[in-house]
Amino acid sequence: MAKQEDQFKKVISHAKEYGYIFQSSEIYDGLSAVYDYAQNGVELKKNIREYWWKAMVQMNENIVGIDAAILMHPTTWKASGHVDAFNDPLIDNKDSKKRYRADVLVEDYCAKIEAKIDKEVTKAAKRFGESFDKDQFLSTNPRVLGYQEKINTILSRLARSLENEDLADVKALIEELEIADPLTGSKNWTDVKQFNLMFGTQLGASADSSMKVYLRPETAQGIFVNFLNVQKTGRMKIPFGIAQTGKAFRNEIVARQFIFRMREFEQMEMQFFIKPGTQKEWYQHWKETRLKWHLSLGMGEDNYRFHDHEKLAHYADAAADIEFKFPFGFKELEGIHSRTDFDLKAHEEYSGKKLQYFDSDENKSYVPYVLETSIGLDRMFLAVFSNSLQEEELENGTSRTVLKLPAVLAPTKVAVFPLVNNSGLPELAREIVDDLKWDFTVMYEDKDSVGKRYRRQDAAGTPFCVTVDHDSLEDNTVTIRHRDTMEQKRVKIADLRAIIKEEVDMRAWLMKM
Amino acid sequence: MAKQEDQFKKVISHAKEYGYIFQSSEIYDGLSAVYDYAQNGVELKKNIREYWWKAMVQMNENIVGIDAAILMHPTTWKASGHVDAFNDPLIDNKDSKKRYRADVLVEDYCAKIEAKIDKEVTKAAKRFGESFDKDQFLSTNPRVLGYQEKINTILSRLARSLENEDLADVKALIEELEIADPLTGSKNWTDVKQFNLMFGTQLGASADSSMKVYLRPETAQGIFVNFLNVQKTGRMKIPFGIAQTGKAFRNEIVARQFIFRMREFEQMEMQFFIKPGTQKEWYQHWKETRLKWHLSLGMGEDNYRFHDHEKLAHYADAAADIEFKFPFGFKELEGIHSRTDFDLKAHEEYSGKKLQYFDSDENKSYVPYVLETSIGLDRMFLAVFSNSLQEEELENGTSRTVLKLPAVLAPTKVAVFPLVNNSGLPELAREIVDDLKWDFTVMYEDKDSVGKRYRRQDAAGTPFCVTVDHDSLEDNTVTIRHRDTMEQKRVKIADLRAIIKEEVDMRAWLMKM
Repeated sequence: MAKQEDQFKKVISHAKEYGYIFQSSEIYDGLSAVYDYAQNGVELKKNIREYWWKAMVQMNENIVGIDAAILMHPTTWKASGHVDAFNDPLIDNKDSKKRYRADVLVEDYCAKIEAKIDKEVTKAAKRFGESFDKDQFLSTNPRVLGYQEKINTILSRLARSLENEDLADVKALIEELEIADPLTGSKNWTDVKQFNLMFGTQLGASADSSMKVYLRPETAQGIFVNFLNVQKTGRMKIPFGIAQTGKAFRNEIVARQFIFRMREFEQMEMQFFIKPGTQKEWYQHWKETRLKWHLSLGMGEDNYRFHDHEKLAHYADAAADIEFKFPFGFKELEGIHSRTDFDLKAHEEYSGKKLQYFDSDENKSYVPYVLETSIGLDRMFLAVFSNSLQEEELENGTSRTVLKLPAVLAPTKVAVFPLVNNSGLPELAREIVDDLKWDFTVMYEDKDSVGKRYRRQDAAGTPFCVTVDHDSLEDNTVTIRHRDTMEQKRVKIADLRAIIKEEVDMRAWLMKM
Repeated sequence: MAKQEDQFKKVISHAKEYGYIFQSSEIYDGLSAVYDYAQNGVELKKNIREYWWKAMVQMNENIVGIDAAILMHPTTWKASGHVDAFNDPLIDNKDSKKRYRADVLVEDYCAKIEAKIDKEVTKAAKRFGESFDKDQFLSTNPRVLGYQEKINTILSRLARSLENEDLADVKALIEELEIADPLTGSKNWTDVKQFNLMFGTQLGASADSSMKVYLRPETAQGIFVNFLNVQKTGRMKIPFGIAQTGKAFRNEIVARQFIFRMREFEQMEMQFFIKPGTQKEWYQHWKETRLKWHLSLGMGEDNYRFHDHEKLAHYADAAADIEFKFPFGFKELEGIHSRTDFDLKAHEEYSGKKLQYFDSDENKSYVPYVLETSIGLDRMFLAVFSNSLQEEELENGTSRTVLKLPAVLAPTKVAVFPLVNNSGLPELAREIVDDLKWDFTVMYEDKDSVGKRYRRQDAAGTPFCVTVDHDSLEDNTVTIRHRDTMEQKRVKIADLRAIIKEEVDMRAWLMKM
């Protein structure tokens, strides 16, 4: 655990040092759970977005995009259920005036019991040495079994109370467990209340016409309300998809883990409209297709796994996550949800308008079913960035920090160095930059020794370095160095474009799907 | 005027019919001054954004990008002046309970006098026939001169009152002119009050730590607060620029003209950090460079003009607009502003942190001056779209609607048709789609006659159509048709990629700058 935390801290500080991510409004001491993408971060983020868009929209004849506004008519969120049910249960401590998520207080209490179990395990492992069988110990040791039963009892009561919206019982549970304010130790609690996670604001200024609106908490509804307009003007035939990338906002009370859970974040979603009854096969299709997309980036098959939901959201008849191995363990990266006709039917009801598709093969109209793929762009960024950051032992006994980003996603594709800052080398290096920049993001670097420049570009994630030396002036060749292998080759300047293109071209990567 | 309005209405309905722009939340009867980009609109918007980004960031070694969050620390907007001064003067009618912008009421009053002048001109033109000299008439006719003087007196008093924040005088002016509520005729007005245009919301839920924040009304401040972090981690040397595209929000009271002035809109801004004293030359440089970018799209030199500001904003020592000829006349498309050190100094003051650059050539530290280029992405979209929509008389006496988008920006680059839906033609057409889609956005079309498909693709803005016929199966050639010339050529399937690429490749267009 400590090692994981260390690794995660390294990720965060490297992201700042190399111009990937800054705390938002840092000069004003930051805004909690909001981050800015810096000069390299913005390029990595753009590249991920484009890689997704190309795979989903450009490569699929029956998927088109849209870009709906963040501000939507407020009835949208009545229909979707967010006004009534997008809540967290909060509790205030009367003495400290601090507010907490009631369910998190209970979960933290259980985590402490869990820690006791871990302690027992450590003790026993020490006692029994090599003959220690952890699984057997966990399933037979009476003390551990007692702890485990207590946890189960608490968590199942919590889940039941939340599901029945029995907030009084959540409070009763906190009091029975004698949970104290973690900051002050006070046990003087208010009642538990529901707090809606949507950000609200006022649209318009007229006394009579100003309207409470929300920053959208998800992009999906922007697709649903536009479904029929897109289908008709785009003359789409079922099955077809509508894809979208864009910002969404949630007033998270417990927002942690860097850019994993932010109050302002970006989603990449695709809603696939299908004939009712075909959802099982499409669910399977999109699970496989989306996993292939992830695997095409070459970040290691073992870092992904499916997690099938047992408890389903009210709108879903099947749901799975693609989980990724983040520095803090396997967590949701993307969701694939069979949403049935829940959303379109709800919008029909609230708008009084028909949202039906006329199926000319079947000669009848129906409300389509929907299969959703939904991925957090910021989470994908964190997955790529954290997985790429590596500390490598070199043959000569030293080590290097290298950011092994998939080359197709790297912010800068190539850095060009003059070996020395005279004798016409800078001029030639700049000529190469000016030539390559039409096709790639290119950087010119002339500070410090070439060795140091290599290390800096390694840490920044640049797949190629090109060095111009005195021979270059004579024979029009340069040295190209590869970030991952550190291999150096002498090549013709005229061949650079093709060599680089082969490794960074988005087409080649998409073909791996 | 009526013709302009007609043309504008055509633009709006064409944008909906061909899947470019929908009213936001249309099934809920829309959200005022908010729009969604539809399946073709999202691609055009993406292409404009990318064309700007490539020209500004990728092609310029000393310009990098960022992507700052929409939510920023609220002190940002104290420092920038938005909390105190980003206001519109509003007035309520006590009888109708309607709210208006006080300055717009006065301006509308003047527009009515202007209409009287137009009437006099029309009358006189009729009376004098061919010998009528409009300019002479305007400068000598006593009645017209009287009207003009009245307008001048009113508008200069309005400007003075607003500048001095003498809102009582704005009300007095409305009462003296006996301006009535346009809806009800009532002259029973409240006092004039300032209304802040920023959307506010609450961040966090804790009783003690929740914070009023704003949706950013401009993207520029996200660059200023990150200036030093970018400069240091990117090791940038002055002069250098930071570019950004992103959403901004203004609670406009009078939001009109389709996507020209929206409550939610996207900006493309670049802040260029320079040595104090060099702002005049950089101002000139960026005015010229930005105009070249616009002209590279080939939408007609006569459609652009500079408008140099006489009255400068509090932060500027020089400012100009690039105006474009929209369907409703020449209006601001992009602004180039010499912002001095106003913003960085303000953030120094409010944050208590130094925002200085150490200039190693001069061996001293200073707060840089800033040269800004700021363009509305939605306005650029409207400029491109409205200018491209043309009604063309054809030689055979018929006409066609054609959307002559610059090919580099067109949503779909090529549509592929099978001449008939049998004999293996659809299969070959799809093979071509599957080949070309790796490089271009491609569409497959098999409904209606080929002539109708051409018209539909013309109206949608697709630069190329490719038709597969029976000969294609024998000789591997197809017909390629060009949207603008309507010229048709027989070409080899193997040559399609190169032919299309030559006209749509972003590099070729950027080279025209």
